[in-house]
Amino acid sequence: MAERFFIAAPPRDGRAILGADESRHLARVLRAKVGDEVIVFDGRGGRWPARIARIDRDAVAVDLIDAAVTGRGEDVPAEPSITLAVALPKGERQKWMVEKLTELGVDRLVPLVTARGVAEATAAATSRLERVVIEACKQCGRDTLLEIGAAATIESLAASTAPAASRLIAHPGGDSLDAAAVIAAGADPPCDLVVAVGPEGGFTPDEIATAQRHGFRPVSLGPHVLRIETAAIALAARFAHRAR
Amino acid sequence: MAERFFIAAPPRDGRAILGADESRHLARVLRAKVGDEVIVFDGRGGRWPARIARIDRDAVAVDLIDAAVTGRGEDVPAEPSITLAVALPKGERQKWMVEKLTELGVDRLVPLVTARGVAEATAAATSRLERVVIEACKQCGRDTLLEIGAAATIESLAASTAPAASRLIAHPGGDSLDAAAVIAAGADPPCDLVVAVGPEGGFTPDEIATAQRHGFRPVSLGPHVLRIETAAIALAARFAHRAR
Repeated sequence: MAERFFIAAPPRDGRAILGADESRHLARVLRAKVGDEVIVFDGRGGRWPARIARIDRDAVAVDLIDAAVTGRGEDVPAEPSITLAVALPKGERQKWMVEKLTELGVDRLVPLVTARGVAEATAAATSRLERVVIEACKQCGRDTLLEIGAAATIESLAASTAPAASRLIAHPGGDSLDAAAVIAAGADPPCDLVVAVGPEGGFTPDEIATAQRHGFRPVSLGPHVLRIETAAIALAARFAHRAR
Repeated sequence: MAERFFIAAPPRDGRAILGADESRHLARVLRAKVGDEVIVFDGRGGRWPARIARIDRDAVAVDLIDAAVTGRGEDVPAEPSITLAVALPKGERQKWMVEKLTELGVDRLVPLVTARGVAEATAAATSRLERVVIEACKQCGRDTLLEIGAAATIESLAASTAPAASRLIAHPGGDSLDAAAVIAAGADPPCDLVVAVGPEGGFTPDEIATAQRHGFRPVSLGPHVLRIETAAIALAARFAHRAR
């Protein structure tokens, strides 16, 4: 299987240019040569077999072997989307979480601003996470990037997501995940899902009240106190690709 | 909330002794003093409030404040168990996986010996993982340790687990996880579950054939190629505490 590379812009006239990071990796680490075959994907569902046409320092050009999109493409009806809004954990746990959410098929991650949260979604942090997303997509064969949204509070999250979406919030004492799954599965047609995960120490009573006012249904993730990233991954594992 | 400490042996006559690691952590890092209150748990379901009675270099003694077991205890009917047999990933991914499986409530992890596996379950590795389990139990409030079993092949795994247990094996092209969940949920009474997860590169056709001969049902974890630890965590999130 040829290796996968991300192109930040769609191919034009049968040719695509890899970004600087991807180009350096291809040229210096993998020591690719002109004529080598690779797979390129645009992060929006398009994927093509391609052949390396030119290797410049920070820009490798490839020619598509077949111009037909072999990935899902953008015109295939999308399955219901899943957005996870998470009070980001710190450091390695943050990166690890994003890798796993990408593998598991979460569509969008929104850094959630909460009273007890610790990590801020700075531009630098978001850019690091976007790199993690690309790496995970390359590795797991996913053609659409997980989108890292702008930071939001519960209130702005509610305002920015479809009113028809099912909304869940991880909170001790809520419904069991099985019950929540039944509810989410029962929507016909299956609707988008927005799931909020709080910081270590949990949401404040005010935050829970706000969430419930906006239609978020509390769900419990079992008897143990899960770390942020564990809760997020467990919810992703439960709800991503649920239409399949 | 008082901090939690693991005791390797059950309390006797109202007194318990912390192991060397726990004692050092308590005395040197946390600078605990005689009279401080802590929670101790024995990893077999017992948990007690206690007070520090004596601090020796590698052995902190605590007196139980109340001798009644406040954890689940060993005589509560257990929910159906979940065993994950996993071709262990390497390094940090291995530790991370064990932390998450502990938080999510997996009962037993069996290092799975496979043709394409890379990490060996040496005694040193197992002992490191047992330390990860204890740390995760302290952090997440779990009173029974996740057990790290002896390494096994698919065949010895089948021989060593209850014939009545539901058996699943992660494999592309298998049933969807939703379908598998329905099957697992449909057993009455709910039965133990054994789930096998292969190495990067997957199981060999021979291994799959062996597994199917032993009643393992292939389940697919979605359209992407999941890393070992992601597959294991996704399965744990889906099936642990399923009786609740």
